[in-house]
Amino acid sequence: MRLLFLGDIVGRSGREAVLEGLKGWREELSLDMVVANAENASHGFGLSPQIARDLLDGGVDAITLGNHAWDRKDLIGQLDQLPAVVRPANYPEGTPGQGSCVVTLPCGRKVLVINVMGRVFMDALDDPFRAVEQILSKHRLGGTVHAAVLDVHAETTSEKMGFGHLYDGRVSLVVGTHTHVPTADHRILRGGTAYQTDAGMCGDYDSVIGMEKENAIRKMLKKVPTERFQPAGGKATVSGLMVETDDTTGLAIRVCPFRQGGDLLPSMPNF
Amino acid sequence: MRLLFLGDIVGRSGREAVLEGLKGWREELSLDMVVANAENASHGFGLSPQIARDLLDGGVDAITLGNHAWDRKDLIGQLDQLPAVVRPANYPEGTPGQGSCVVTLPCGRKVLVINVMGRVFMDALDDPFRAVEQILSKHRLGGTVHAAVLDVHAETTSEKMGFGHLYDGRVSLVVGTHTHVPTADHRILRGGTAYQTDAGMCGDYDSVIGMEKENAIRKMLKKVPTERFQPAGGKATVSGLMVETDDTTGLAIRVCPFRQGGDLLPSMPNF
Amino acid sequence: MRLLFLGDIVGRSGREAVLEGLKGWREELSLDMVVANAENASHGFGLSPQIARDLLDGGVDAITLGNHAWDRKDLIGQLDQLPAVVRPANYPEGTPGQGSCVVTLPCGRKVLVINVMGRVFMDALDDPFRAVEQILSKHRLGGTVHAAVLDVHAETTSEKMGFGHLYDGRVSLVVGTHTHVPTADHRILRGGTAYQTDAGMCGDYDSVIGMEKENAIRKMLKKVPTERFQPAGGKATVSGLMVETDDTTGLAIRVCPFRQGGDLLPSMPNF
Amino acid sequence: MRLLFLGDIVGRSGREAVLEGLKGWREELSLDMVVANAENASHGFGLSPQIARDLLDGGVDAITLGNHAWDRKDLIGQLDQLPAVVRPANYPEGTPGQGSCVVTLPCGRKVLVINVMGRVFMDALDDPFRAVEQILSKHRLGGTVHAAVLDVHAETTSEKMGFGHLYDGRVSLVVGTHTHVPTADHRILRGGTAYQTDAGMCGDYDSVIGMEKENAIRKMLKKVPTERFQPAGGKATVSGLMVETDDTTGLAIRVCPFRQGGDLLPSMPNF
Ligand SMILES: [Fe+2]
Ligand SMILES: [Fe+2]
Ligand SMILES: [Fe+2]
Ligand SMILES: [Fe+2]
Ligand SMILES: [Fe+2]
Ligand SMILES: [Fe+2]
Ligand SMILES: [Fe+2]
Ligand SMILES: [Fe+2]
Repeated sequence: MRLLFLGDIVGRSGREAVLEGLKGWREELSLDMVVANAENASHGFGLSPQIARDLLDGGVDAITLGNHAWDRKDLIGQLDQLPAVVRPANYPEGTPGQGSCVVTLPCGRKVLVINVMGRVFMDALDDPFRAVEQILSKHRLGGTVHAAVLDVHAETTSEKMGFGHLYDGRVSLVVGTHTHVPTADHRILRGGTAYQTDAGMCGDYDSVIGMEKENAIRKMLKKVPTERFQPAGGKATVSGLMVETDDTTGLAIRVCPFRQGGDLLPSMPNF
Repeated sequence: MRLLFLGDIVGRSGREAVLEGLKGWREELSLDMVVANAENASHGFGLSPQIARDLLDGGVDAITLGNHAWDRKDLIGQLDQLPAVVRPANYPEGTPGQGSCVVTLPCGRKVLVINVMGRVFMDALDDPFRAVEQILSKHRLGGTVHAAVLDVHAETTSEKMGFGHLYDGRVSLVVGTHTHVPTADHRILRGGTAYQTDAGMCGDYDSVIGMEKENAIRKMLKKVPTERFQPAGGKATVSGLMVETDDTTGLAIRVCPFRQGGDLLPSMPNF
Repeated sequence: MRLLFLGDIVGRSGREAVLEGLKGWREELSLDMVVANAENASHGFGLSPQIARDLLDGGVDAITLGNHAWDRKDLIGQLDQLPAVVRPANYPEGTPGQGSCVVTLPCGRKVLVINVMGRVFMDALDDPFRAVEQILSKHRLGGTVHAAVLDVHAETTSEKMGFGHLYDGRVSLVVGTHTHVPTADHRILRGGTAYQTDAGMCGDYDSVIGMEKENAIRKMLKKVPTERFQPAGGKATVSGLMVETDDTTGLAIRVCPFRQGGDLLPSMPNF
Repeated sequence: MRLLFLGDIVGRSGREAVLEGLKGWREELSLDMVVANAENASHGFGLSPQIARDLLDGGVDAITLGNHAWDRKDLIGQLDQLPAVVRPANYPEGTPGQGSCVVTLPCGRKVLVINVMGRVFMDALDDPFRAVEQILSKHRLGGTVHAAVLDVHAETTSEKMGFGHLYDGRVSLVVGTHTHVPTADHRILRGGTAYQTDAGMCGDYDSVIGMEKENAIRKMLKKVPTERFQPAGGKATVSGLMVETDDTTGLAIRVCPFRQGGDLLPSMPNF
């Protein structure tokens, strides 16, 4: 199976770059499945139901979220009608929405998508490792599901690497989000799981993590609050990674960064 | 001028990979200057005076540090005899050592090296921006110094990007350290400064940021303290980036990741 | 000199309790000077210029602030016309307002009021110890000023105790604010400075630090954002402490908690 | 029932003051039950098995812990033989020891003791509210147990007040520990539960939260690590609070601070 994962889509610039390119890339790369983190898709803060639908109509098969999951209150009531939108699994019981979903592709193959949030330097949610264990206990990679993607929305590289090693061999891909900068450590771990510490953002990199740089820098220097941050409006880089998996085992065969447009060095998988 | 910057050297594995390769790479890439962050060179925690000397004898021209600067108490009293070893500039007045140094190359050209530490999710040091301003006010890029390297030792991508934009055009390179994972966002910013959010570590990546993964993961799962962490001993990736600068302006002409050995995809500059 | 210090005034309930009682207490206790922290006076978040004037007209001689200093943007432009309103001294140079003021009483005696913010688990401001040193270097307790009050707005007890010991003998009173709960450790330190780790809030204690408890607890349990917090509207306890100083030395002779109204055990100084 | 709760016992000074006074106080105050937090009893860091036994032999009926629970590795293996020593309940499943215990008094009455740790500005443990719910679901106040004490080991006043209100009416006492400073907000909440945000420490208050002040202040000023902190050795204040409960309902009838010796103003319950 050929999977594309895209990191945090930030604002209009990020959204438009994804929607303009995605159908072409699906074809060019013979993609079976696209997952995107969209916690910043609505003007940098949260995801509106309309934009969720636009992304799902525009070639994204499943959407993950993060600490900004609840910024758009109108999404909360609609999460139940959007089964392909998942929020971090380690929110307490009774939280709206789901922490994972299984997407059935037109060909009939099934892909498990899990979203989980780290706890270091982030809000104190429930144990993310236990949350992932509970989800994985209900599925068997290479059995009930043909592939499994785990989006670890976390601040520190250590916590993300912990997830990588712990679930190595049990999911197809462990990929980090949240820092909005792609890492260059994509690889297949010893147990067969593709791994990258952060997928990077889909947004304008001439910015501070996707937001207009002037205000963000003023805040760092002055400490006195400034205007509310606005997403930077320059040309976005669409950033993520592509994985090819073995449908029998669900493990990764190849992994390659995907970066198109904007300020970063492009990378297009050639498998 | 042709500069190589190497990220946090971690333990014996990282040190040996750097020392074994560096003389060859200096020649192969016609390097004029090598800067390395060595805050984890001594068994993962700090830098002993002996290892500082080994690195300086082995092809490193200047060493930067970070939050682990003081882990080896024997270094503190010797910092004054090691002028090419710099600790973060924003420690309070009276702190041993210096936050910057100027290295004069055999050819007579001068390179300013600055080390500074971020404050988000780190110890509350003095204002890092003011510390860098004070240092830069005494030097002129393309005038009194031919190149200038700023190592921003920080946790968050936002703070590092703030430094990149703020000093764009005033130094040759702004590069982050501390997260131990290389980022894939190397580029030359609008004002001519080369930038990469993190240089990555020189160490074994089959680990949790360079430390043995079993213990690190057990700590994440169990919370009860484990044995003291040990550096992972597998084959290291030497990770950093190379920059070519214009000696007249001191600004960057080319930038390319440098990665050799170990688990990560290799990258060798071809300019 | 007889000084009353009141902790963080929270919302209408806290404001009204202070304004209703203060003139009577000034007389009853023969107070020479009243200082109040008012960072939460305007509906729990910040201080409006109008409420600042109401407090200053109502018997408060000087107002201190904290991390909520900038919540009310209309205050920022008016800080220069409100010399008796001080914000934390360790904001960077160029920040609106002042970190200290000298109030001249009708009798001609002068009182130095300093506000400073801790850095542990708070925003990374400049070194608060250096900021206080710079202010104290311009004044002499028992010389140019007859008394000096230092409000340490900080999260941790350790940082506040550090301030107490460090400035023991150099100011009349070191008192903490920010936690909204009075501590029972009021005393005169070895060097003659009155000390209390936190003055407590002037607000409704049937709450979570002055805010309505239902919403605050729901946020702790659910993690999903709730409505914006509202100040609790029940009867406030006015909480602080009274200090009597020696006008010759400026040091403390007596210290006693002051608590009136609401849910806490009352305490009225009897000296 | 007449209960005494003592806050964090720090080092030799705190231990000796408790052991010297406790048998007298038990008699003088007709105490039925004494609970003490002892996470810092062994030289400021952790609790050795021997000191645990000394305290249990010396008049303490149950011991609670906190973030320092694991500082003394020799305690870990012996927790199972020390059923009256409880560690925070919200450590993950499989953690040595228990998060609560039921002490049966010589008269046959039973007291439930719970220890839980907050998550704000502390290690990311499991949900402390859920942990307490699970324990309380197995006991009925005024039914299976005659009294129940909940020690909330936490940094912030807000989290502690959240616990107070949430369990108001369901336990006899909610008391905070960890900040090492007693608060003056002891009271009986609307639902009948006695509450105090922090019990304070049993230790030398001429210190920084019980540790020698010189080193602690040097660390705040210099940032470069100093010697390992040592407990302050001056005369300790024994600090806590006394509660009288109704054996039928288990709720509180009276609450009063208990403070004896050392630098703080003494308080001796007179009921
Ligand atoms: Fe994001
Ligand atoms: Fe995020
Ligand atoms: Fe570091
Ligand atoms: Fe490091
Ligand atoms: Fe505050
Ligand atoms: Fe406040
Ligand atoms: Fe503690
Ligand atoms: Fe403690």
